[in-house]
Amino acid sequence: MTAPDAATENPRGEHDLPDVSSLTVGVLGGTGDLGSGLAYRLAKAGQRVVIGSRSAERAEAVAAELGLGIRGADNAAAAAAGDIVIIAVPWDGHRAVLESTRRDLAGKVVIDCVNPLGFDKQGAHALRPDEGSAAQQAAALLPDSHVTAGFHHVSAKLLLDREAERMDTDVMVLGDSRAATDIVQALACRIPGMRGIFAGRLRNAHQVESLTANLISVNRRYRAHAGLRVTDV
Amino acid sequence: MTAPDAATENPRGEHDLPDVSSLTVGVLGGTGDLGSGLAYRLAKAGQRVVIGSRSAERAEAVAAELGLGIRGADNAAAAAAGDIVIIAVPWDGHRAVLESTRRDLAGKVVIDCVNPLGFDKQGAHALRPDEGSAAQQAAALLPDSHVTAGFHHVSAKLLLDREAERMDTDVMVLGDSRAATDIVQALACRIPGMRGIFAGRLRNAHQVESLTANLISVNRRYRAHAGLRVTDV
Repeated sequence: MTAPDAATENPRGEHDLPDVSSLTVGVLGGTGDLGSGLAYRLAKAGQRVVIGSRSAERAEAVAAELGLGIRGADNAAAAAAGDIVIIAVPWDGHRAVLESTRRDLAGKVVIDCVNPLGFDKQGAHALRPDEGSAAQQAAALLPDSHVTAGFHHVSAKLLLDREAERMDTDVMVLGDSRAATDIVQALACRIPGMRGIFAGRLRNAHQVESLTANLISVNRRYRAHAGLRVTDV
Repeated sequence: MTAPDAATENPRGEHDLPDVSSLTVGVLGGTGDLGSGLAYRLAKAGQRVVIGSRSAERAEAVAAELGLGIRGADNAAAAAAGDIVIIAVPWDGHRAVLESTRRDLAGKVVIDCVNPLGFDKQGAHALRPDEGSAAQQAAALLPDSHVTAGFHHVSAKLLLDREAERMDTDVMVLGDSRAATDIVQALACRIPGMRGIFAGRLRNAHQVESLTANLISVNRRYRAHAGLRVTDV
Protein backbone atom coordinates (compact mmCIF):
# COMPACT_ATOMS: atom_id res chain seq x y z
CA MET A 1 0.00 0.00 0.00
CA THR A 2 1.31 3.42 -0.92
CA ALA A 3 0.34 6.50 1.05
CA PRO A 4 -3.06 7.89 0.08
CA ASP A 5 -3.03 10.90 -2.19
CA ALA A 6 -3.53 13.92 0.01
CA ALA A 7 -5.40 15.67 -2.80
CA THR A 8 -8.25 13.19 -2.70
CA GLU A 9 -10.59 12.23 0.11
CA ASN A 10 -10.87 8.50 -0.19
CA PRO A 11 -13.66 6.88 1.76
CA ARG A 12 -12.51 5.14 4.91
CA GLY A 13 -11.23 1.66 4.24
CA GLU A 14 -11.03 2.28 0.51
CA HIS A 15 -7.96 0.95 -1.27
CA ASP A 16 -6.01 3.48 -3.31
CA LEU A 17 -8.11 4.69 -6.18
CA PRO A 18 -6.49 5.28 -9.58
CA ASP A 19 -5.10 8.66 -10.63
CA VAL A 20 -7.60 10.10 -13.10
CA SER A 21 -6.25 13.64 -13.17
CA SER A 22 -4.93 13.38 -16.74
CA LEU A 23 -8.14 11.99 -18.23
CA THR A 24 -10.50 14.08 -20.33
CA VAL A 25 -14.14 14.06 -19.29
CA GLY A 26 -16.86 14.34 -21.92
CA VAL A 27 -20.31 15.39 -20.73
CA LEU A 28 -23.23 14.57 -23.04
CA GLY A 29 -26.10 16.88 -22.26
CA GLY A 30 -23.47 19.22 -20.90
CA THR A 31 -25.56 22.34 -21.39
CA GLY A 32 -28.23 21.18 -18.95
CA ASP A 33 -28.10 22.09 -15.26
CA LEU A 34 -26.56 18.87 -13.95
CA GLY A 35 -24.23 18.46 -16.93
CA SER A 36 -22.89 21.99 -16.82
CA GLY A 37 -22.64 21.84 -13.02
CA LEU A 38 -20.53 18.68 -13.14
CA ALA A 39 -18.43 20.14 -15.96
CA TYR A 40 -17.77 23.25 -13.89
CA ARG A 41 -16.78 21.35 -10.73
CA LEU A 42 -14.57 18.85 -12.56
CA ALA A 43 -12.79 21.57 -14.52
CA LYS A 44 -12.31 23.55 -11.32
CA ALA A 45 -10.71 20.42 -9.84
CA GLY A 46 -8.24 20.41 -12.73
CA GLN A 47 -9.89 17.97 -15.11
CA ARG A 48 -9.97 18.60 -18.88
CA VAL A 49 -13.65 18.79 -19.82
CA VAL A 50 -15.58 18.85 -23.11
CA ILE A 51 -19.32 19.45 -22.91
CA GLY A 52 -21.58 18.14 -25.64
CA SER A 53 -25.00 19.19 -26.82
CA ARG A 54 -27.16 18.58 -29.86
CA SER A 55 -25.96 21.99 -31.07
CA ALA A 56 -22.20 22.58 -31.08
CA GLU A 57 -22.79 26.36 -31.04
CA ARG A 58 -24.90 26.12 -27.91
CA ALA A 59 -22.28 23.92 -26.24
CA GLU A 60 -19.54 26.38 -27.16
CA ALA A 61 -21.54 29.28 -25.75
CA VAL A 62 -22.18 27.49 -22.43
CA ALA A 63 -18.54 26.36 -22.28
CA ALA A 64 -17.40 29.96 -22.71
CA GLU A 65 -19.71 31.05 -19.88
CA LEU A 66 -18.40 28.31 -17.60
CA GLY A 67 -14.76 29.19 -18.34
CA LEU A 68 -11.95 27.14 -16.77
CA GLY A 69 -10.82 25.90 -20.20
CA ILE A 70 -14.00 23.90 -20.77
CA ARG A 71 -14.64 23.26 -24.47
CA GLY A 72 -17.97 22.79 -26.24
CA ALA A 73 -18.85 20.44 -29.12
CA ASP A 74 -21.73 18.39 -30.42
CA ASN A 75 -22.51 15.25 -28.43
CA ALA A 76 -20.69 12.93 -30.84
CA ALA A 77 -17.51 15.01 -30.70
CA ALA A 78 -17.72 15.26 -26.89
CA ALA A 79 -18.13 11.49 -26.72
CA ALA A 80 -15.12 11.03 -28.98
CA ALA A 81 -13.00 13.49 -26.96
CA GLY A 82 -13.68 11.99 -23.52
CA ASP A 83 -11.71 9.21 -21.85
CA ILE A 84 -14.58 9.14 -19.37
CA VAL A 85 -18.02 10.18 -20.62
CA ILE A 86 -20.85 11.38 -18.40
CA ILE A 87 -24.42 10.96 -19.70
CA ALA A 88 -26.48 13.87 -18.35
CA VAL A 89 -29.23 14.16 -20.92
CA PRO A 90 -32.94 14.24 -20.03
CA TRP A 91 -34.47 10.76 -19.74
CA ASP A 92 -36.56 11.20 -22.86
CA GLY A 93 -33.42 11.74 -24.93
CA HIS A 94 -31.41 8.96 -23.26
CA ARG A 95 -31.86 6.14 -25.77
CA ALA A 96 -31.34 8.34 -28.83
CA VAL A 97 -28.12 9.95 -27.65
CA LEU A 98 -26.61 6.61 -26.68
CA GLU A 99 -27.57 4.99 -29.99
CA SER A 100 -26.02 7.87 -31.90
CA THR A 101 -22.74 7.88 -29.94
CA ARG A 102 -22.29 4.13 -29.45
CA ARG A 103 -19.14 3.84 -31.57
CA ASP A 104 -17.51 6.88 -29.96
CA LEU A 105 -18.18 5.41 -26.51
CA ALA A 106 -16.71 1.97 -27.23
CA GLY A 107 -13.99 0.95 -24.79
CA LYS A 108 -14.66 3.91 -22.50
CA VAL A 109 -15.94 4.36 -18.99
CA VAL A 110 -19.47 5.75 -19.24
CA ILE A 111 -21.15 7.32 -16.20
CA ASP A 112 -24.91 7.41 -16.46
CA CYS A 113 -26.49 9.95 -14.13
CA VAL A 114 -29.94 10.05 -15.68
CA ASN A 115 -32.99 9.87 -13.38
CA PRO A 116 -36.12 8.52 -15.10
CA LEU A 117 -38.82 10.53 -13.33
CA GLY A 118 -42.35 11.60 -14.06
CA PHE A 119 -43.98 14.73 -12.67
CA ASP A 120 -47.59 15.52 -11.80
CA LYS A 121 -49.53 17.63 -9.30
CA GLN A 122 -48.19 15.58 -6.40
CA GLY A 123 -44.59 16.08 -7.43
CA ALA A 124 -42.03 13.66 -8.83
CA HIS A 125 -42.36 9.91 -9.05
CA ALA A 126 -40.18 7.10 -10.34
CA LEU A 127 -40.57 5.70 -13.84
CA ARG A 128 -39.51 2.13 -14.53
CA PRO A 129 -37.55 1.57 -17.76
CA ASP A 130 -38.06 -1.83 -19.42
CA GLU A 131 -34.40 -2.62 -18.80
CA GLY A 132 -34.84 -1.90 -15.05
CA SER A 133 -33.07 1.47 -14.93
CA ALA A 134 -31.49 4.11 -17.13
CA ALA A 135 -28.07 2.63 -16.34
CA GLN A 136 -29.15 -0.84 -17.38
CA GLN A 137 -30.59 0.60 -20.58
CA ALA A 138 -27.21 2.22 -21.22
CA ALA A 139 -25.44 -1.09 -20.59
CA ALA A 140 -27.77 -2.81 -23.07
CA LEU A 141 -27.22 -0.12 -25.71
CA LEU A 142 -23.45 0.12 -25.16
CA PRO A 143 -22.15 -3.46 -24.99
CA ASP A 144 -18.60 -2.32 -25.81
CA SER A 145 -18.42 0.34 -23.07
CA HIS A 146 -17.85 0.06 -19.31
CA VAL A 147 -21.15 1.43 -18.04
CA THR A 148 -21.42 2.75 -14.50
CA ALA A 149 -23.95 4.95 -12.72
CA GLY A 150 -23.29 7.88 -10.42
CA PHE A 151 -23.81 11.57 -9.62
CA HIS A 152 -27.61 11.15 -9.35
CA HIS A 153 -28.11 13.02 -6.11
CA VAL A 154 -25.91 16.04 -6.56
CA SER A 155 -27.70 19.38 -6.53
CA ALA A 156 -27.13 21.15 -9.84
CA LYS A 157 -27.81 24.44 -8.06
CA LEU A 158 -24.98 23.84 -5.61
CA LEU A 159 -22.62 22.59 -8.33
CA LEU A 160 -23.15 25.84 -10.23
CA ASP A 161 -22.94 28.07 -7.15
CA ARG A 162 -19.61 29.79 -7.61
CA GLU A 163 -19.50 30.77 -3.96
CA ALA A 164 -19.69 27.15 -2.80
CA GLU A 165 -16.14 25.88 -2.36
CA ARG A 166 -17.04 22.40 -1.15
CA MET A 167 -19.72 19.89 -2.12
CA ASP A 168 -20.62 18.20 1.16
CA THR A 169 -22.21 15.17 -0.40
CA ASP A 170 -21.38 11.63 -1.46
CA VAL A 171 -21.82 10.06 -4.85
CA MET A 172 -23.13 6.51 -4.96
CA VAL A 173 -21.23 4.71 -7.71
CA LEU A 174 -22.68 1.56 -9.26
CA GLY A 175 -21.30 -0.83 -11.81
CA ASP A 176 -20.36 -4.39 -12.60
CA SER A 177 -16.67 -3.68 -13.40
CA ARG A 178 -14.44 -2.92 -10.44
CA ALA A 179 -11.88 -1.14 -12.64
CA ALA A 180 -14.61 1.15 -13.99
CA THR A 181 -16.24 1.94 -10.65
CA ASP A 182 -12.80 2.68 -9.19
CA ILE A 183 -12.26 5.30 -11.91
CA VAL A 184 -15.64 6.90 -11.24
CA GLN A 185 -15.06 6.94 -7.50
CA ALA A 186 -11.70 8.59 -8.11
CA LEU A 187 -13.32 11.19 -10.33
CA ALA A 188 -15.93 12.05 -7.68
CA CYS A 189 -13.19 12.28 -5.05
CA ARG A 190 -11.49 14.99 -7.13
CA ILE A 191 -14.22 17.46 -6.16
CA PRO A 192 -13.53 18.95 -2.72
CA GLY A 193 -15.91 17.56 -0.10
CA MET A 194 -17.32 14.91 -2.38
CA ARG A 195 -16.66 11.20 -2.05
CA GLY A 196 -17.38 8.43 -4.52
CA ILE A 197 -18.77 5.46 -2.60
CA PHE A 198 -19.21 2.06 -4.23
CA ALA A 199 -22.89 1.20 -3.78
CA GLY A 200 -23.55 -1.96 -5.74
CA ARG A 201 -24.09 -3.48 -9.15
CA LEU A 202 -26.10 -2.03 -12.01
CA ARG A 203 -29.05 -4.27 -11.15
CA ASN A 204 -29.48 -2.08 -8.07
CA ALA A 205 -29.38 1.21 -10.00
CA HIS A 206 -33.15 1.73 -10.27
CA GLN A 207 -33.62 2.72 -6.65
CA VAL A 208 -30.62 5.05 -6.70
CA GLU A 209 -31.97 6.83 -9.78
CA SER A 210 -35.51 6.93 -8.36
CA LEU A 211 -34.43 8.27 -4.99
CA THR A 212 -34.05 11.61 -6.73
CA ALA A 213 -37.86 11.84 -6.53
CA ASN A 214 -37.56 11.67 -2.74
CA LEU A 215 -34.86 14.32 -2.67
CA ILE A 216 -37.17 16.56 -4.68
CA SER A 217 -39.78 16.07 -1.93
CA VAL A 218 -37.14 16.94 0.66
CA ASN A 219 -36.22 20.07 -1.27
CA ARG A 220 -39.84 21.19 -1.41
CA ARG A 221 -40.48 20.62 2.28
CA TYR A 222 -37.26 22.16 3.59
CA ARG A 223 -36.46 24.62 0.79
CA ALA A 224 -33.12 22.86 0.56
CA HIS A 225 -30.74 21.50 -2.08
CA ALA A 226 -30.58 18.08 -0.50
CA GLY A 227 -27.86 15.53 -1.12
CA LEU A 228 -26.76 12.39 0.70
CA ARG A 229 -23.88 11.36 2.91
CA VAL A 230 -23.24 7.69 3.57
CA THR A 231 -22.49 7.38 7.28
CA ASP A 232 -19.95 5.08 8.95
CA VAL A 233 -17.82 5.05 5.76
CA MET B 1 -44.36 29.65 16.75
CA THR B 2 -43.19 28.40 20.14
CA ALA B 3 -39.53 27.78 20.84
CA PRO B 4 -38.29 24.42 19.59
CA ASP B 5 -37.99 21.69 22.19
CA ALA B 6 -34.34 21.55 23.19
CA ALA B 7 -34.62 17.81 23.78
CA THR B 8 -35.20 17.08 20.10
CA GLU B 9 -33.09 17.84 17.06
CA ASN B 10 -35.54 19.06 14.49
CA PRO B 11 -34.32 19.25 10.92
CA ARG B 12 -33.49 22.76 9.78
CA GLY B 13 -36.52 24.64 8.62
CA GLU B 14 -38.89 22.09 10.18
CA HIS B 15 -41.92 23.46 11.97
CA ASP B 16 -42.41 22.26 15.50
CA LEU B 17 -43.09 18.57 15.55
CA PRO B 18 -45.64 17.13 17.98
CA ASP B 19 -44.70 15.86 21.42
CA VAL B 20 -44.82 12.07 21.22
CA SER B 21 -43.04 11.34 24.50
CA SER B 22 -46.16 9.98 26.21
CA LEU B 23 -47.13 7.60 23.39
CA THR B 24 -46.60 3.85 23.62
CA VAL B 25 -44.75 2.26 20.72
CA GLY B 26 -45.62 -1.29 19.65
CA VAL B 27 -43.04 -3.13 17.55
CA LEU B 28 -44.32 -6.10 15.53
CA GLY B 29 -41.42 -8.40 14.76
CA GLY B 30 -39.80 -6.89 17.81
CA THR B 31 -37.54 -9.86 18.47
CA GLY B 32 -35.70 -9.46 15.14
CA ASP B 33 -32.52 -7.38 14.87
CA LEU B 34 -34.09 -4.17 13.56
CA GLY B 35 -37.20 -4.46 15.74
CA SER B 36 -35.32 -5.07 18.95
CA GLY B 37 -32.77 -2.39 18.04
CA LEU B 38 -35.49 0.21 17.54
CA ALA B 39 -37.23 -0.92 20.72
CA TYR B 40 -33.99 -0.52 22.67
CA ARG B 41 -33.24 2.97 21.32
CA LEU B 42 -36.78 4.25 21.76
CA ALA B 43 -37.03 2.92 25.30
CA LYS B 44 -33.64 4.45 26.09
CA ALA B 45 -35.04 7.76 24.83
CA GLY B 46 -37.88 7.44 27.36
CA GLN B 47 -40.61 5.92 25.20
CA ARG B 48 -42.89 3.17 26.53
CA VAL B 49 -42.31 0.16 24.27
CA VAL B 50 -44.03 -3.21 23.79
CA ILE B 51 -42.35 -5.68 21.45
CA GLY B 52 -44.42 -8.29 19.70
CA SER B 53 -43.57 -11.66 18.23
CA ARG B 54 -45.45 -14.74 17.08
CA SER B 55 -44.54 -16.23 20.46
CA ALA B 56 -45.34 -14.14 23.54
CA GLU B 57 -42.76 -16.12 25.55
CA ARG B 58 -40.01 -15.31 23.07
CA ALA B 59 -41.02 -11.63 23.09
CA GLU B 60 -41.00 -11.57 26.88
CA ALA B 61 -37.54 -13.17 26.96
CA VAL B 62 -36.09 -10.65 24.49
CA ALA B 63 -37.81 -7.78 26.32
CA ALA B 64 -36.21 -8.92 29.57
CA GLU B 65 -32.79 -8.98 27.90
CA LEU B 66 -33.28 -5.49 26.46
CA GLY B 67 -34.38 -4.09 29.82
CA LEU B 68 -35.41 -0.41 30.10
CA GLY B 69 -38.98 -1.39 30.98
CA ILE B 70 -39.67 -2.89 27.58
CA ARG B 71 -42.53 -5.39 27.66
CA GLY B 72 -43.06 -8.45 25.46
CA ALA B 73 -46.31 -9.84 24.04
CA ASP B 74 -47.65 -11.61 20.99
CA ASN B 75 -47.96 -9.46 17.87
CA ALA B 76 -51.70 -8.87 18.32
CA ALA B 77 -51.25 -7.67 21.90
CA ALA B 78 -48.31 -5.45 20.91
CA ALA B 79 -50.44 -3.97 18.12
CA ALA B 80 -53.26 -3.35 20.58
CA ALA B 81 -50.92 -1.77 23.15
CA GLY B 82 -49.21 0.68 20.80
CA ASP B 83 -50.36 4.20 19.98
CA ILE B 84 -47.74 4.04 17.22
CA VAL B 85 -46.94 0.64 15.78
CA ILE B 86 -43.72 -0.24 13.95
CA ILE B 87 -43.83 -3.13 11.46
CA ALA B 88 -40.41 -4.80 11.52
CA VAL B 89 -41.22 -8.32 10.40
CA PRO B 90 -39.38 -10.10 7.56
CA TRP B 91 -40.88 -9.38 4.15
CA ASP B 92 -42.20 -12.91 3.75
CA GLY B 93 -44.31 -12.50 6.88
CA HIS B 94 -45.49 -8.96 6.08
CA ARG B 95 -48.88 -9.65 4.59
CA ALA B 96 -49.87 -12.26 7.18
CA VAL B 97 -48.99 -10.17 10.23
CA LEU B 98 -50.89 -7.14 8.88
CA GLU B 99 -53.96 -9.20 8.01
CA SER B 100 -54.00 -10.72 11.49
CA THR B 101 -53.59 -7.38 13.33
CA ARG B 102 -55.73 -5.16 11.09
CA ARG B 103 -58.39 -4.45 13.70
CA ASP B 104 -55.84 -3.68 16.42
CA LEU B 105 -54.09 -1.23 14.11
CA ALA B 106 -57.23 0.71 13.12
CA GLY B 107 -56.94 4.43 13.77
CA LYS B 108 -53.25 4.22 14.61
CA VAL B 109 -50.07 5.50 13.05
CA VAL B 110 -48.28 2.53 11.51
CA ILE B 111 -44.60 2.76 10.53
CA ASP B 112 -43.58 0.18 7.96
CA CYS B 113 -39.83 -0.39 7.87
CA VAL B 114 -39.82 -3.60 5.87
CA ASN B 115 -37.36 -3.95 2.98
CA PRO B 116 -38.48 -6.43 0.31
CA LEU B 117 -35.12 -7.86 -0.78
CA GLY B 118 -33.89 -11.02 -2.44
CA PHE B 119 -30.43 -12.50 -1.93
CA ASP B 120 -28.23 -14.54 -4.23
CA LYS B 121 -24.51 -15.06 -4.91
CA GLN B 122 -24.13 -11.44 -6.04
CA GLY B 123 -25.66 -10.09 -2.84
CA ALA B 124 -28.95 -8.32 -2.23
CA HIS B 125 -31.37 -7.04 -4.84
CA ALA B 126 -34.72 -5.29 -4.75
CA LEU B 127 -37.97 -7.20 -5.03
CA ARG B 128 -41.04 -5.45 -6.41
CA PRO B 129 -44.28 -6.05 -4.53
CA ASP B 130 -47.45 -5.99 -6.66
CA GLU B 131 -48.63 -2.95 -4.69
CA GLY B 132 -45.38 -1.09 -5.52
CA SER B 133 -43.70 -1.35 -2.12
CA ALA B 134 -44.11 -2.94 1.29
CA ALA B 135 -45.51 0.36 2.58
CA GLN B 136 -48.12 0.50 -0.19
CA GLN B 137 -49.04 -3.11 0.56
CA ALA B 138 -49.52 -2.09 4.19
CA ALA B 139 -51.70 0.86 3.15
CA ALA B 140 -53.84 -1.46 1.02
CA LEU B 141 -54.21 -3.98 3.84
CA LEU B 142 -54.82 -1.36 6.56
CA PRO B 143 -57.35 1.10 5.12
CA ASP B 144 -58.31 2.30 8.60
CA SER B 145 -54.73 3.04 9.76
CA HIS B 146 -52.40 5.95 9.00
CA VAL B 147 -49.63 4.12 7.20
CA THR B 148 -46.18 5.67 6.93
CA ALA B 149 -42.74 4.28 6.09
CA GLY B 150 -39.45 4.91 7.85
CA PHE B 151 -36.41 3.50 9.66
CA HIS B 152 -35.33 1.48 6.61
CA HIS B 153 -31.67 2.45 6.62
CA VAL B 154 -30.77 2.25 10.26
CA SER B 155 -28.12 -0.31 11.12
CA ALA B 156 -29.55 -2.86 13.56
CA LYS B 157 -26.00 -3.56 14.73
CA LEU B 158 -25.50 0.07 15.74
CA LEU B 159 -28.95 0.33 17.32
CA LEU B 160 -28.11 -2.64 19.54
CA ASP B 161 -24.57 -1.48 20.34
CA ARG B 162 -24.85 -0.44 23.97
CA GLU B 163 -21.66 1.59 23.73
CA ALA B 164 -23.04 3.79 20.94
CA GLU B 165 -24.60 6.86 22.55
CA ARG B 166 -25.65 8.57 19.31
CA MET B 167 -27.08 7.33 16.02
CA ASP B 168 -25.52 9.63 13.43
CA THR B 169 -28.05 8.92 10.74
CA ASP B 170 -31.28 10.29 9.32
CA VAL B 171 -34.56 8.51 8.86
CA MET B 172 -36.46 9.15 5.65
CA VAL B 173 -40.15 9.34 6.57
CA LEU B 174 -42.79 8.79 3.90
CA GLY B 175 -46.53 9.02 4.00
CA ASP B 176 -49.63 10.66 2.57
CA SER B 177 -50.87 12.14 5.87
CA ARG B 178 -48.99 15.13 7.20
CA ALA B 179 -50.21 14.53 10.76
CA ALA B 180 -48.91 10.96 10.63
CA THR B 181 -45.50 11.75 9.12
CA ASP B 182 -45.06 14.53 11.67
CA ILE B 183 -45.53 11.99 14.47
CA VAL B 184 -43.02 9.60 12.90
CA GLN B 185 -40.49 12.38 12.39
CA ALA B 186 -40.92 13.39 16.01
CA LEU B 187 -40.38 9.80 17.12
CA ALA B 188 -37.15 9.51 15.11
CA CYS B 189 -35.95 12.82 16.54
CA ARG B 190 -36.27 11.37 20.04
CA ILE B 191 -33.19 9.21 19.44
CA PRO B 192 -30.00 11.24 20.01
CA GLY B 193 -28.25 12.05 16.71
CA MET B 194 -31.13 10.82 14.59
CA ARG B 195 -33.42 13.07 12.57
CA GLY B 196 -36.70 12.21 10.91
CA ILE B 197 -36.79 13.86 7.49
CA PHE B 198 -39.93 13.99 5.39
CA ALA B 199 -39.02 12.35 2.08
CA GLY B 200 -42.20 12.03 0.07
CA ARG B 201 -45.43 10.15 -0.42
CA LEU B 202 -45.96 6.41 -0.17
CA ARG B 203 -45.85 6.07 -3.94
CA ASN B 204 -42.13 6.85 -3.64
CA ALA B 205 -41.48 4.24 -0.92
CA HIS B 206 -40.19 1.48 -3.22
CA GLN B 207 -36.83 3.10 -3.86
CA VAL B 208 -36.33 3.95 -0.19
CA GLU B 209 -37.00 0.33 0.80
CA SER B 210 -34.85 -1.01 -2.04
CA LEU B 211 -31.92 1.26 -1.27
CA THR B 212 -31.18 -1.07 1.61
CA ALA B 213 -29.73 -3.43 -1.02
CA ASN B 214 -27.21 -0.72 -1.90
CA LEU B 215 -26.34 -0.12 1.72
CA ILE B 216 -25.65 -3.85 2.05
CA SER B 217 -23.19 -3.48 -0.85
CA VAL B 218 -21.60 -0.53 0.92
CA ASN B 219 -21.31 -2.55 4.12
CA ARG B 220 -19.58 -5.39 2.28
CA ARG B 221 -17.11 -3.16 0.49
CA TYR B 222 -16.20 -0.96 3.45
CA ARG B 223 -16.89 -3.33 6.36
CA ALA B 224 -19.21 -0.61 7.65
CA HIS B 225 -22.66 -0.25 9.17
CA ALA B 226 -23.74 2.36 6.66
CA GLY B 227 -26.61 4.75 7.10
CA LEU B 228 -27.62 7.99 5.39
CA ARG B 229 -27.56 11.66 6.20
CA VAL B 230 -29.59 14.08 4.12
CA THR B 231 -27.36 17.09 3.47
CA ASP B 232 -28.39 20.77 3.38
CA VAL B 233 -31.33 20.05 5.72
